[in-house]
Amino acid sequence: MAPIDPTSSTDFSPATQSGWRRRWFLIIFHHSPGAPRHFDLLLIFAILVSVMIVLLDSVAAIHARWFMWLLAVEWIFTVFFTIEYVVRLCVVKRPWHYATSSWGVIDLLSILPTYISLMLPGGQALMVVRILRILRVFRVLKLTQYLAEGNLLVTAMMRSRRKIFLFISALMTIVVIFAAIMYLIEGPAHGFTSIPTSMYWAIVTMATVGYGDISPQTSLGRIVTSILILIGYSIIAVPTGIYTAELADTLRGSSPDAIRDKRDCPACGLEGHDPQANFCRHCAHALASSTS
Amino acid sequence: MAPIDPTSSTDFSPATQSGWRRRWFLIIFHHSPGAPRHFDLLLIFAILVSVMIVLLDSVAAIHARWFMWLLAVEWIFTVFFTIEYVVRLCVVKRPWHYATSSWGVIDLLSILPTYISLMLPGGQALMVVRILRILRVFRVLKLTQYLAEGNLLVTAMMRSRRKIFLFISALMTIVVIFAAIMYLIEGPAHGFTSIPTSMYWAIVTMATVGYGDISPQTSLGRIVTSILILIGYSIIAVPTGIYTAELADTLRGSSPDAIRDKRDCPACGLEGHDPQANFCRHCAHALASSTS
Amino acid sequence: MAPIDPTSSTDFSPATQSGWRRRWFLIIFHHSPGAPRHFDLLLIFAILVSVMIVLLDSVAAIHARWFMWLLAVEWIFTVFFTIEYVVRLCVVKRPWHYATSSWGVIDLLSILPTYISLMLPGGQALMVVRILRILRVFRVLKLTQYLAEGNLLVTAMMRSRRKIFLFISALMTIVVIFAAIMYLIEGPAHGFTSIPTSMYWAIVTMATVGYGDISPQTSLGRIVTSILILIGYSIIAVPTGIYTAELADTLRGSSPDAIRDKRDCPACGLEGHDPQANFCRHCAHALASSTS
Amino acid sequence: MAPIDPTSSTDFSPATQSGWRRRWFLIIFHHSPGAPRHFDLLLIFAILVSVMIVLLDSVAAIHARWFMWLLAVEWIFTVFFTIEYVVRLCVVKRPWHYATSSWGVIDLLSILPTYISLMLPGGQALMVVRILRILRVFRVLKLTQYLAEGNLLVTAMMRSRRKIFLFISALMTIVVIFAAIMYLIEGPAHGFTSIPTSMYWAIVTMATVGYGDISPQTSLGRIVTSILILIGYSIIAVPTGIYTAELADTLRGSSPDAIRDKRDCPACGLEGHDPQANFCRHCAHALASSTS
Repeated sequence: MAPIDPTSSTDFSPATQSGWRRRWFLIIFHHSPGAPRHFDLLLIFAILVSVMIVLLDSVAAIHARWFMWLLAVEWIFTVFFTIEYVVRLCVVKRPWHYATSSWGVIDLLSILPTYISLMLPGGQALMVVRILRILRVFRVLKLTQYLAEGNLLVTAMMRSRRKIFLFISALMTIVVIFAAIMYLIEGPAHGFTSIPTSMYWAIVTMATVGYGDISPQTSLGRIVTSILILIGYSIIAVPTGIYTAELADTLRGSSPDAIRDKRDCPACGLEGHDPQANFCRHCAHALASSTS
Repeated sequence: MAPIDPTSSTDFSPATQSGWRRRWFLIIFHHSPGAPRHFDLLLIFAILVSVMIVLLDSVAAIHARWFMWLLAVEWIFTVFFTIEYVVRLCVVKRPWHYATSSWGVIDLLSILPTYISLMLPGGQALMVVRILRILRVFRVLKLTQYLAEGNLLVTAMMRSRRKIFLFISALMTIVVIFAAIMYLIEGPAHGFTSIPTSMYWAIVTMATVGYGDISPQTSLGRIVTSILILIGYSIIAVPTGIYTAELADTLRGSSPDAIRDKRDCPACGLEGHDPQANFCRHCAHALASSTS
Repeated sequence: MAPIDPTSSTDFSPATQSGWRRRWFLIIFHHSPGAPRHFDLLLIFAILVSVMIVLLDSVAAIHARWFMWLLAVEWIFTVFFTIEYVVRLCVVKRPWHYATSSWGVIDLLSILPTYISLMLPGGQALMVVRILRILRVFRVLKLTQYLAEGNLLVTAMMRSRRKIFLFISALMTIVVIFAAIMYLIEGPAHGFTSIPTSMYWAIVTMATVGYGDISPQTSLGRIVTSILILIGYSIIAVPTGIYTAELADTLRGSSPDAIRDKRDCPACGLEGHDPQANFCRHCAHALASSTS
Repeated sequence: MAPIDPTSSTDFSPATQSGWRRRWFLIIFHHSPGAPRHFDLLLIFAILVSVMIVLLDSVAAIHARWFMWLLAVEWIFTVFFTIEYVVRLCVVKRPWHYATSSWGVIDLLSILPTYISLMLPGGQALMVVRILRILRVFRVLKLTQYLAEGNLLVTAMMRSRRKIFLFISALMTIVVIFAAIMYLIEGPAHGFTSIPTSMYWAIVTMATVGYGDISPQTSLGRIVTSILILIGYSIIAVPTGIYTAELADTLRGSSPDAIRDKRDCPACGLEGHDPQANFCRHCAHALASSTS
């Protein structure tokens, strides 16, 4: 299973170059204006409503009163998503490639829980499975790919991921050292029951969340906490600095991307062509010449 | 009702090109030095004092003792704002256009509650209406438009709004997934009574607010919380990065704006002319030539 | 009293151009290497120790046991600061100008409380006066002026002050509106006893402090709180963006400053000359030619 | 003991230019691909596992049940790290120089506690010593040096350290003043037992941690707190601004670094050559010509 890349769903090819399968491929897998975009909006609406139902179902008062209605609506959506999944498998060129891609796995995980809950007798295990349906919310992310801004943000994030990882490593070193110190100073009597618990406290403190469920009570502990907070306050700037600098760079170099995204194929409506391309990489129809 | 755009209130035209209505139009709708600016300062003062009265009136001890005084002052301000509203309707060219604009609606909502409280018998409903008077505070924002800095900030915000929206969508996906996980791990016994409650907790945690009214109590819950906090800590950089990059861009390209804001029409005092303009777009008087 | 400007203390001139008064003027008012810098370090040490004594004196256990020792050390420092204040008045050209400047007022406020506590009988009033001695800590800021970095930071802060003020105004509008909404939703029963109290809660929430002394308890209140937090999370970027953009600008234009700060007068050691200057503005001695 | 500089561990030279000591020197002190990198990964794994054991050992339930197993694994790691330490001393040219460097001291502190715990009878003192083994986590940082990104981040941090220090000084001045004010307003009855305690509260508040263990309860105290929070909210931008501006500068000037890091010596695999270098600074083998 490849890692999720929100910019890559147009990697799939249609099973045939004509007929209903090609038409439905464009509707389901593309995001160009017209029918494909209407389908996208319908899908996003269905996903959001079905996630909303999982949320409402978890509220005891609502579950007690509206249980049957929620179940009915849930089955309608599951049938709809099942048909969508089957159609996707039918119209794509290599169904297995789609089914094992990260998006295919999420699509399957979105419908399986409702069927499994038919077979499993109730209880906690059932609830876990029912909650799994919430994974559908991930599919909304897929829709963000046709916005140039989304690509920009993801590009800048990808370019800064090694720096952010390094930063998190340095952060964890500070967290472990301060957790050990506070465990020695405050001890189990003041809530610092073990070093892992202390680490939870140190993360909550450095990230400036500060629940207050565990807090220092001795003078020395408060001094050490103040030092930890000042360190956290000084380095909270680092991830922001990393990302801002990368994003400024990406924004500056983003003009060609903007051009690329504006040209749609006049025949099949595919977008995202290379600035130098003269023909659609999908149907080979001539493209408008790029005006840059 | 159009969305509020703090930079657009000079879209209105005076009802006549001369006489008292034109003079009052300039005083009320413009912000150039002299009488118009004095009126602006008077208005801002009146708004702030009348909002202050709503605040004080909500404190039980003050309400019990000073009720009559606060009521008297409140009526003085309401009469003043009513006269201002009527004058605005009189001097503007298309009163209906003004009355249905977002600023016109806010102006009306600022005075209506005091009159409604005359007709309605007391109780909770009355309080809601009285509190509505606080909407007057919005009107202060209108005054910020004659500062070039305000335009800069709003421009940068407008340019980054699609990116911020995308970011909030991704954030909500993470919030929903972690809310479902924590609901399963901690359960109603530890305060996570439903997934919506869990979502409230996840938002409070990711945004580093951390009230502590709900906090994880199991080891697994604390590990998941630490992961959520580290994710939040890594991506808090994203909106900052977006806005900073856009603002830096806007600042760099802002020189023409600075010139545009400096030239006032010598006849009618209107500001905000285009750098290339040679005549006032309001009264057609010749402008000083731009010196750039 | 002029506002405090940490970059301006060399605005004072010596009373005479030679003799002990001039020598002491250079020692006390300047920060060049040698005796003046040693005096600066001695002064910073004395200020920090005397502030530390106020801090320790407020701890009940320490006050009870070491009261006499703390009092003795306090008087030694007060006599030292009094002598310093008198010498400053003697060696400066216009003593009244110094005494009414913001630094002169702080210098006086640093020593007065100890003398006043001799005349006043004990109690709360005395404590207030004794605490006032802590204002001495402000004087440390004065020392930061001979660092070029300090000037850079202050310049960027000054240039962004109007934008920050605008931002705080917009923030307060949001705070007042949400405070009124939460006061209606949660009411006095859940800790939102009045709109001012609600405003305190809204500020604590938007700035992501989140004490948890007041927190929403109804479902609607939690939804409104989540919206407020998301708004706060989206606009926390604004002051950072403003300041970063200004600082990047200031840094880019800061090369001449760097040169200016490197040239010390070979005669009197004064630093901070203009890049174009050929002679010391203090003693008119020829300066090394700037190499830019 | 020199301050820890993560970029400097290749300052050590091998004891001999050939033989097993040179081979092991390269394996232990270098990070080029092949055996040295495998050794690095083995070491990082050993450090992380041994730190994990200290963490687990502090959990009472785990300690009670798995005490003997944890002790056994601990001794295996201690023997491994001891051998590593001895080999390092053997293969380096100036063992004493290595032993007194900051990395050498950390290496020694990583193994000593286990031996000391043999001689010391139990109790609190023993626990302190055992926890000291956690210092090993610092050694992971050493590994980050062969990532060009690490150098970038550290360079930007070093360049902004004076500004950050100045900022922390100004912050502490505000903290002391507000701590004194709140101590006077709220007093010991509301948790502000002394000015140092007030300072702890002020740091927790300004850094937006907000535990809520101490919070204002009077109206005046809440107003002062709101002001303190707004000040903190306005200046939280400063360290971010400083670091972002420096990092953007460093990134812009980092192209040569990128080139430098790509050329490995074809003979000994050493990386990090100067762009102008034509021969490996280690074994004098000719390098590929730089293509910039």
